[in-house]
Amino acid sequence: MIQVEVALAERSYPILIGQGLLSACEPLLRLAAGRMVAIVTDDQVGPLYAARLEAALQGVAASRITVTLPHGEANKGWGTLERIFDALLEARFDRGALIVALGGGVVGDMAGFAAAVYQRGIDFVQVPTTLLAQVDSSVGGKTGINHPLGKNMIGAFHQPRLVLIDTDTLSTLPAREVSAGLAEILKHGAIADAGYFEQVVNDLAALRAVDAAALARAIARSCEIKASVVSRDEREGGLRAILNFGHTFGHAIEAGLGYGEWLHGEAVGAGMVMAADLSCRLGLIEGAVRKRIEQAVAEAGLPVEGPRWAVQRYIELMSVDKKAEQGTPKFVLLDALGSAVVKRAPQADVEATLRACTGA
Amino acid sequence: MIQVEVALAERSYPILIGQGLLSACEPLLRLAAGRMVAIVTDDQVGPLYAARLEAALQGVAASRITVTLPHGEANKGWGTLERIFDALLEARFDRGALIVALGGGVVGDMAGFAAAVYQRGIDFVQVPTTLLAQVDSSVGGKTGINHPLGKNMIGAFHQPRLVLIDTDTLSTLPAREVSAGLAEILKHGAIADAGYFEQVVNDLAALRAVDAAALARAIARSCEIKASVVSRDEREGGLRAILNFGHTFGHAIEAGLGYGEWLHGEAVGAGMVMAADLSCRLGLIEGAVRKRIEQAVAEAGLPVEGPRWAVQRYIELMSVDKKAEQGTPKFVLLDALGSAVVKRAPQADVEATLRACTGA
Repeated sequence: MIQVEVALAERSYPILIGQGLLSACEPLLRLAAGRMVAIVTDDQVGPLYAARLEAALQGVAASRITVTLPHGEANKGWGTLERIFDALLEARFDRGALIVALGGGVVGDMAGFAAAVYQRGIDFVQVPTTLLAQVDSSVGGKTGINHPLGKNMIGAFHQPRLVLIDTDTLSTLPAREVSAGLAEILKHGAIADAGYFEQVVNDLAALRAVDAAALARAIARSCEIKASVVSRDEREGGLRAILNFGHTFGHAIEAGLGYGEWLHGEAVGAGMVMAADLSCRLGLIEGAVRKRIEQAVAEAGLPVEGPRWAVQRYIELMSVDKKAEQGTPKFVLLDALGSAVVKRAPQADVEATLRACTGA
Repeated sequence: MIQVEVALAERSYPILIGQGLLSACEPLLRLAAGRMVAIVTDDQVGPLYAARLEAALQGVAASRITVTLPHGEANKGWGTLERIFDALLEARFDRGALIVALGGGVVGDMAGFAAAVYQRGIDFVQVPTTLLAQVDSSVGGKTGINHPLGKNMIGAFHQPRLVLIDTDTLSTLPAREVSAGLAEILKHGAIADAGYFEQVVNDLAALRAVDAAALARAIARSCEIKASVVSRDEREGGLRAILNFGHTFGHAIEAGLGYGEWLHGEAVGAGMVMAADLSCRLGLIEGAVRKRIEQAVAEAGLPVEGPRWAVQRYIELMSVDKKAEQGTPKFVLLDALGSAVVKRAPQADVEATLRACTGA
């Protein structure tokens, strides 16, 4: 078992990475002992893995319920969230209760947000079962739901007490979702550690083949990078924005297509190529670095171009992004492989990038 | 203008109390300068007072919208909250935006919760226009909405940046709502300051007649007491519970009648008598103190008895209270006038109190 610490003073917590943790994880059992525990999962992950957690908690938790949500980004709204509240209130769960989020990023975001606002905040544990959630959304305390006018527009910063990553769960993950996770892994290298980026590129075949050792190594290093950024900027006042490399463009793609059409990691894949292209246009990086990123994204099995929409459509979609300030988005760009900067960009360059990177 | 500080380290904020502050309040204008500002109000308070705030913000805020919600506790749910999110997103409000909550406790709780979760948290200002909101709900950062199974079950701790109390707004407040505010004022004396309790009792006629000087004095002292408690226990880990004197019984009354049937302060009035009765049964206070509280509640124009329901109905309603732990409510009791303690109570005594204080 590998342990990575997220240092946030009194809100610090460990990330535990290993095989078989769903069935045997002492820190989880200590946290759950004597408490009301709700496992929140979805109808894809629940049937595969909920029983392992339920068995582990048997006789440890004071009481236990399992709440199964409909799968998918399209269900990441208030209506689904209410199912959690209804179940917690019907079971008379109090402020001492614990939520365990078992599933991908959507389940983690929703269960985490439910924990953030149920009776003004209760404890929760992240048990991410997709590669993307393991290296990204489960760490850092961002929780939330979508609004018809924007992704993750309603949410809270609410740190988990523990993140438990059982790499066994990746064995059932579809190849497309493995690739989506690799997008965030490549991102961590691109923004913070060129050597790690190169290592991931070298390991891409093994990672796509769900090689346990290669995955554990990448998950641990990605969690370290994310934890380090989050520790220095919990509430996204500045530095944390670099984690959004590829996301301003990516969110526009997701919003324009309708959530769930492309996987989040796929949109981020194309978005990173666009952000690299823009960095290049602004003279921040060489064309070779832009090309290196495009190749890595392609080799990870991800799209390298956005949908073929009018430039104005992208501009419009980006202006509602949370990172926009009074309608003007800031971009996370690279000034070298392994180093990110946050900048506004001239409209003409943004438009040139959109034309170049959207097959238009 | 009287100023009371709420000391919460980097989340500290001032409460400003005075006449005419809606039209002229320099600290509000400084906070709003150059920002997108949303005034959130309701269809009773908005027509009376929104224009004053709008005029004051004219030329100061970068942009301004007013969101008018339907009045009343019955509307304190997700459906109403969504109107705020829709308006903010349609106006492209970003993370730098500011919400100004103009109204009673319901508006403050909802606008504050919207601010807590819009794009994972934006700034907000409380401008309470009812006596109850001025001395209670606007201070301390509790925000939230109701669920069919319980009041304020979904919410967040989110501190305002400023509380602005314009005592002129009390001139239009119905007598019944003045009395409801006096319930919380009496509560502050009962739990923390016997001298203040006696002063309030002496001033009751002036307070009920909306005498400006008497009101400003009481509002300031009540805010001081509440601020002091909140400063020492922001997230209700322990001490803050004493502010719920009268509320365990009171919430049961509100939940059982349906929200909005009795005013919150009315339920707290009867609830305080019940809590005093229980304190007396447990030998914590003399019968004379219990009687003093009952008389004060009556003189404030508040009910001194709960609805005539079966004892079991009350027990059931109290078991879902947020302060309940695994189904057993704790009670805030008095061990002297001006001094509160939090205790579990034997079921037989609780039942005796319910029989004695509900006209059953």
